[in-house]
Amino acid sequence: MKKNVNIAVVGLGQIGNYLLNELNIKKKDIEIKTGKKIKIVAISAKNPQKKRKFKINKKIFFKNPVDIIKKKNIDILFECIGNSDGISKKIVELSLKNKIHVITPNKALISKHGDYLSKVAEKNKVNLEFEASVAGGIPILRTIKEGLATNKITKVYGILNGTCNYILSEMETSKNTFSNVLKKAQHLGYAEPGNPKLDLNGYDAFAKVRILSSLSFNKKISNKKCLMEGIENIDYKDIEIASQLNFRIKLLGITEIINNKLFERVHPCLVNKETYIGNVNGVMNAVIVHGKPIGESIFQGEGAGPEATSSALMSDFLSILRGNIKYPFGIPNTKRKTAYTYNIRNYSNSLYLRFEVKDKPGVLSQITHQLAKKKISVERLIQIPNHKNKTASIVIITHKANEYNSQKCIKSLRANKNILKNPVLIRLL
Amino acid sequence: MKKNVNIAVVGLGQIGNYLLNELNIKKKDIEIKTGKKIKIVAISAKNPQKKRKFKINKKIFFKNPVDIIKKKNIDILFECIGNSDGISKKIVELSLKNKIHVITPNKALISKHGDYLSKVAEKNKVNLEFEASVAGGIPILRTIKEGLATNKITKVYGILNGTCNYILSEMETSKNTFSNVLKKAQHLGYAEPGNPKLDLNGYDAFAKVRILSSLSFNKKISNKKCLMEGIENIDYKDIEIASQLNFRIKLLGITEIINNKLFERVHPCLVNKETYIGNVNGVMNAVIVHGKPIGESIFQGEGAGPEATSSALMSDFLSILRGNIKYPFGIPNTKRKTAYTYNIRNYSNSLYLRFEVKDKPGVLSQITHQLAKKKISVERLIQIPNHKNKTASIVIITHKANEYNSQKCIKSLRANKNILKNPVLIRLL
Repeated sequence: MKKNVNIAVVGLGQIGNYLLNELNIKKKDIEIKTGKKIKIVAISAKNPQKKRKFKINKKIFFKNPVDIIKKKNIDILFECIGNSDGISKKIVELSLKNKIHVITPNKALISKHGDYLSKVAEKNKVNLEFEASVAGGIPILRTIKEGLATNKITKVYGILNGTCNYILSEMETSKNTFSNVLKKAQHLGYAEPGNPKLDLNGYDAFAKVRILSSLSFNKKISNKKCLMEGIENIDYKDIEIASQLNFRIKLLGITEIINNKLFERVHPCLVNKETYIGNVNGVMNAVIVHGKPIGESIFQGEGAGPEATSSALMSDFLSILRGNIKYPFGIPNTKRKTAYTYNIRNYSNSLYLRFEVKDKPGVLSQITHQLAKKKISVERLIQIPNHKNKTASIVIITHKANEYNSQKCIKSLRANKNILKNPVLIRLL
Repeated sequence: MKKNVNIAVVGLGQIGNYLLNELNIKKKDIEIKTGKKIKIVAISAKNPQKKRKFKINKKIFFKNPVDIIKKKNIDILFECIGNSDGISKKIVELSLKNKIHVITPNKALISKHGDYLSKVAEKNKVNLEFEASVAGGIPILRTIKEGLATNKITKVYGILNGTCNYILSEMETSKNTFSNVLKKAQHLGYAEPGNPKLDLNGYDAFAKVRILSSLSFNKKISNKKCLMEGIENIDYKDIEIASQLNFRIKLLGITEIINNKLFERVHPCLVNKETYIGNVNGVMNAVIVHGKPIGESIFQGEGAGPEATSSALMSDFLSILRGNIKYPFGIPNTKRKTAYTYNIRNYSNSLYLRFEVKDKPGVLSQITHQLAKKKISVERLIQIPNHKNKTASIVIITHKANEYNSQKCIKSLRANKNILKNPVLIRLL
């Protein structure tokens, strides 16, 4: 790469704006570390007038980012818009085709179009870097691609959504409801004020799981959804009961290879309070990697926010400036195999079940009978009476139970008129 | 780098031998990931006949590693002998001067001669890589140099010696003495059977601290010893009392910049049982990095053993094969500044003190008087009587106390005839 490097930043929301400031204040440091002189020659956003934390230079502002590619000589472009399609995809594709390196924190884009875009990047011999798309404060993609390069990775799991982890932690400590804590999270800027759905329903974590899978197992990005559940239905009552049983509830993203098949999932999990993962609280992200020969390695850091995201974008940036031309997914696209999807019906797991029932004879027997019929064996059972309205909570921890049978069992119990609410099912880690 | 790459492995102890096997079984995987065909063309060790886990190919064996450089056309050499000087230094220097990339897990060599050797590497435009010298299962050097490249790092600390962490953990759980647990550690292969001194006295961890400092703060390697204490004098009694006070004892390596000065230290620490670091037990290593903008990031993995070390050596290897020519310390040698050493006399810290005293009037007053004279303020005090031999243990947790004053105080109390043993001083984190 030549000594003078021209930069464009497209998208000036919280992340793009923070990044722009970092690029400006760290120019000298970057020159020392890489020998390159960087110059920001173009920026673009929907609204140039929007109030931003750091002032922008309007002389280099472009209303339409496509014009930047046409009119300016760009070496590296940062895409910080964040859509899975539309202008995000268009500008990334166009840049790569014009032999411009692209850096993006856009997990929606990469998890959907990463295979195609990486092909374009490879063909044009430029980099497509997306470290910031998963767990910003932890350079986990670089770690998998490079730091653990020759390990045979078998499983990667962790807390991949800081918003959800904050909400679950805060519900526990403040003994508050989901909706109240969500409001607090929005007020603090941890959750989107408008539509936090993509965080809460597991979609955001699932996009990250897909990126982690493809890097860890050298597979193409899967487009199948094995299992995705969010935290919208987590009741404080379950957090409280779980706590009494020495568990915490965490939203985990898990990807592993079982019998040569890829099993990707995001769902709330009961994790033991004494484990490492049970003690990662607040907005933190944590990723646990199982591999050979390394065994188990743990990585923890801030997951979101412009600071952590910017740190990851800058690491990608320096990697390109240092001249490291790399395959976006660590190996050539032609060597990445299509993943066969594991059939979740075959999966077995211990479960936490809660039934709100009428407090009358025979109800417990109806539940245990149904469980027995589906070969679900009870490890622990607690019945908590609620004398005031003549109901009771029946909480069951099962031994390993087959997923297909469990779903069937819950479905049939849902029809039981003595069971007053939708039964709660949370898997154990 | 050309397509066919010739490799030499010098030193075939546990690590070198394991690595050799990994190189052999992962040839194909390496070719897929990097496009390079590797060939091991030379190996060397003191004793070709030694019983090894994996068989070696005697046809490529050299008694004197220097002959390899003379007779073979080597591209990359692994130095796995492990001395800080002697043949280790000689072969590394000679290789670099002959434009051969060098990869080594040798922390003793790098912490002593790293500055000089990195200059030689830079001059000859080859890599000197040493990821495996610190916390093998965690790619922490790569993370600092690349993953967190533009962060301003202010402090790095952690558990850097798996042997010591195993011994301290095992003393707590088995309620056993240091010497008994050391024997067990040696039996299990966690501690050197012959001379485990360099692990136990903090030297090994200190070498790692020096490497971490130079990378984190872009400084030359320091040759000053701010503070180095090992675990040889940790008594089970202190582990037991600490536990009652909700602490654990951990050997920590800590490096930070205080008022623009470098403060490096290795010593046992009392850490709260509820903290992350207080729960890293057994042979695990953990590194905590404080930086801006990332905040706090945590990295944990196996610290020693041929598996973790080999994983790190292989990551260095792939980095070279992928053509990443880099400065060994992340920035050019000419830009690395000499570190000014922090004067430990100015440091303030809370302390755990234990005095074994004659159980007679006035002794407690003598101790507290001496503490007051040195402006050491008591936060907690427990006196535990031992009626059988008319002695008592006085345990004190102090508020922050100046290091110089504390040492003076301990010295003067040592002369007190009512104090029966050398007072115990352990710093709090």
